[in-house]
Amino acid sequence: MIADLHPRGVFCAALTPLTSDLAPDHAQFTAHCRRLLEEGCNGIALLGTTGEANSFSTAERQALLEAAVSAGIAPERLLPGTGVAALTETVALTRHALSLGVTTVVMLPPFYYKGVTDDGLFAAYAEVVERVADPRLRVVLYHIPQFSAVPITFPVIERLRARYPGTFTGIKDSAGDLAHMEALVERFPGLAVLAGADPLMLPLLRKGGAGCITATSNLVAADLAFVFRHFDDPGQAAEVEAAQARVVAARNRASRFAQMASLKVLLAQRTGDEGWRRMRPPLLPLSAEEASALLQA
Amino acid sequence: MIADLHPRGVFCAALTPLTSDLAPDHAQFTAHCRRLLEEGCNGIALLGTTGEANSFSTAERQALLEAAVSAGIAPERLLPGTGVAALTETVALTRHALSLGVTTVVMLPPFYYKGVTDDGLFAAYAEVVERVADPRLRVVLYHIPQFSAVPITFPVIERLRARYPGTFTGIKDSAGDLAHMEALVERFPGLAVLAGADPLMLPLLRKGGAGCITATSNLVAADLAFVFRHFDDPGQAAEVEAAQARVVAARNRASRFAQMASLKVLLAQRTGDEGWRRMRPPLLPLSAEEASALLQA
Repeated sequence: MIADLHPRGVFCAALTPLTSDLAPDHAQFTAHCRRLLEEGCNGIALLGTTGEANSFSTAERQALLEAAVSAGIAPERLLPGTGVAALTETVALTRHALSLGVTTVVMLPPFYYKGVTDDGLFAAYAEVVERVADPRLRVVLYHIPQFSAVPITFPVIERLRARYPGTFTGIKDSAGDLAHMEALVERFPGLAVLAGADPLMLPLLRKGGAGCITATSNLVAADLAFVFRHFDDPGQAAEVEAAQARVVAARNRASRFAQMASLKVLLAQRTGDEGWRRMRPPLLPLSAEEASALLQA
Repeated sequence: MIADLHPRGVFCAALTPLTSDLAPDHAQFTAHCRRLLEEGCNGIALLGTTGEANSFSTAERQALLEAAVSAGIAPERLLPGTGVAALTETVALTRHALSLGVTTVVMLPPFYYKGVTDDGLFAAYAEVVERVADPRLRVVLYHIPQFSAVPITFPVIERLRARYPGTFTGIKDSAGDLAHMEALVERFPGLAVLAGADPLMLPLLRKGGAGCITATSNLVAADLAFVFRHFDDPGQAAEVEAAQARVVAARNRASRFAQMASLKVLLAQRTGDEGWRRMRPPLLPLSAEEASALLQA
């Protein structure tokens, strides 16, 4: 049963390296993707919140996905974010992904209007599916109310799964509440529930979850992949706990200052490329003082 | 002093009529703009929250603005919204407006990331101005925290006006709090403060405000225009109060159900075109029952 969940595994919510002009750096990005896969990620959830996707234009997003595919990253390993505020752009981004053979996408709700009704949210997702009109499409719903301010409610999930069986196969739950993730697992058998916070993947897997799409995996992919592969192996219990402890420590370290900027500083250190520190406004890099304190920690 | 404020007057936050395919209806829209100007609006604040702009793609937004200019609406009468989540798209929309001779734009802050710092918000607006690099540009900041969830703070306004004198000339304050609008007038002499709620234009004008950008003006432009022209004329005090009362009544009527959908139902009635009722998801038209109750009121 759990083996049928899609997607299933450790997916890195990949950071996006930027050029000096603050545009996505394709070469640096594809190198990062390769490294993440070598470290054991099952795939790359690119162009999400951690990837600063909503600070990029449609054309910039499409170009980055094309670069990853052209560089030889297998399309089935890529889970791009395609949900934006504008219906027609969500459709365009989703169609574009499918045109490259990328069939599973992570889709935010339209996030400008707040207080949207369940009917309105259902209509928004349904209209995208109808317009894309491609039976290959698999959608991971993206619940992250602290940024979207548009929660995806259980009744909406229920209606979407009933109306489009086989399309809405997963949900990324980034609200940070394990009880909410467990409730999703219980209420929707067959739905792949992916933790949006690294430390919660292990307890979620033990309740029937499918894995994670997380930010700290930019740094600790190998440990997360180990936890995923061995979480239910009694013979590896101690090693799993040790890997989990390293994941928690890495996340705590990256949470002292702004998380995404901190992860970029740590990747700059690891790769020796200070360019990794750049962020596109409205997000900013850590200050020199913060970066120094982070690296000394 | 007040005469120097820019922009100054009654600007309609124009609704966007949709075709049966839920695309902006250019012909219907330009007819609506002409009617609003004939009724006395000083200009049209198209492609804002009321206009469902963030549900349209960059291409759809540009095409609608081009249609208005091509139809003969004077570019100096048009205040399009150009602020979106992605920096490069905000730049593209703003440059496009300028290319049409439309020099004053209403600019939301980037609205995906929440909890953005003042430094980050300043950097986002500054980067747009630097990239657009056109001295004709005039920006009306758009403070609408109930939708953007990114308030524009006084320190950010102060820094932007100091760094780019003559560029950030106005602010649309849609938070609905008259005291906040008055505080803006007091703190920033020369800044055109525009009320985002119709009933608040009159009290704001009496405190030195510049006018309004509002939704109910889709229906009561003539009354609002009368209030604007005569608010300080003692000989017209009774007529101003009567017009203001009609504005308040119209707004209350349109607020019983969802406001934008209600205004569209009332415009459908006025124009005899039921197509006006359409909305693009995630927003939805009123139900038949709601529309009927609204029209009977």
